[in-house]
Amino acid sequence: MHQQQIFTQMALQAWEMQISRTGKFLDSQTDEELLKEIAPGKNRNLYILGHLIAVNDAMITLFGLGERAYSHLDAAFIKNPDKAGFEMPDAAALRTAWKESNTQLSALFNQMSSEDWFSKHTAITDEDFAKTPARNKLSVLLNRTGHVAYHLGQMVLVK
Amino acid sequence: MHQQQIFTQMALQAWEMQISRTGKFLDSQTDEELLKEIAPGKNRNLYILGHLIAVNDAMITLFGLGERAYSHLDAAFIKNPDKAGFEMPDAAALRTAWKESNTQLSALFNQMSSEDWFSKHTAITDEDFAKTPARNKLSVLLNRTGHVAYHLGQMVLVK
Repeated sequence: MHQQQIFTQMALQAWEMQISRTGKFLDSQTDEELLKEIAPGKNRNLYILGHLIAVNDAMITLFGLGERAYSHLDAAFIKNPDKAGFEMPDAAALRTAWKESNTQLSALFNQMSSEDWFSKHTAITDEDFAKTPARNKLSVLLNRTGHVAYHLGQMVLVK
Repeated sequence: MHQQQIFTQMALQAWEMQISRTGKFLDSQTDEELLKEIAPGKNRNLYILGHLIAVNDAMITLFGLGERAYSHLDAAFIKNPDKAGFEMPDAAALRTAWKESNTQLSALFNQMSSEDWFSKHTAITDEDFAKTPARNKLSVLLNRTGHVAYHLGQMVLVK
C-alpha cells in the first residue's frame, strides 16, 4: 500500500471510531435522557448531538464537496448556546440526521483520493498553503475527530 | 517536504494542540478547583490529570523508547477509579509531572523519524502488523490525542 494511502486510512479510521463510539452511546440513551443536562446548568445531549451534526456537515463546503445538508441547524446548535430559545428538531429527527449525515460524509470521504486529502481546503489561501502544507483537508478531519471525542467525553457524563 | 513527513507533522501538531489546550485549562484552575468533582458524583480533575499523565507516559514503552517515568501512577489513576482510596500525589506534584512528562514526550517524539512512526508498536505481532500496516505508532498517537480531547471536554465542565 502506498504510504499516502496508509495515512488517509489511519485518519479515516480514527474518524470512524469516534463516530461509531458516539453512535453507540446515542443508541444507549432514551429520548428523555437526551433532554437531560449532562451536569447541572450544562448542555443537554440533544444540543451536543445537533452541534456535532452541524459542525461535521460543514466539512462538505470546507472540502469543496458540494452543498451542505444541515446548515439550517447552525443557528440553534453552533451560533447560539443551548437553551437560548431556538427551535430544535426533536430527538427522533436528530437521531435520523446523525445517521444520514455520517452515511453521507463517509461516502464523500471514501471517494476522495489521497491527493485530495493532502490538498488545501477552501478556507486557506494559496500563499498560506504553500507555506504550511500541513494545513490540508486531512488536518481538518483530524481536528474534527478531536472535536467529536471532546464532546463524547461530555455526553457520557449524563449516565 | 515528503508526504510521510507532512503526515507525521500533522499528527504531532494535533497532539501538541490538545496538550497545550489542556495545559492552559489546568493553569486556569486553582489547586482547590482541581479537587472538585466535574459533576456531582463524577471524577475530580485531579484524577483526570493523573490519568492523562499515566496513559500518555505508557507510550514510552509502547513505542520502545525506554523506561516509563510515571508507572507508579497506574494504580491510582488507571487501574482504579477516582475516590477508591489510593494515595495520590498532590496538585502541585501532578502539575509538575504533567509539564515534565509532556516535555519528555515531545523530546522523544521529535527525535523519531517518519519511518519510526510508521513502524509497529510493541503490542502488535509481526504477522498482525503485516496485515494491518495502519496499526503503527502514529495510529496510537492519534488515539491518545483523541483520549486527551475526550477528557479535556470533561475537565472544562467544572467551570
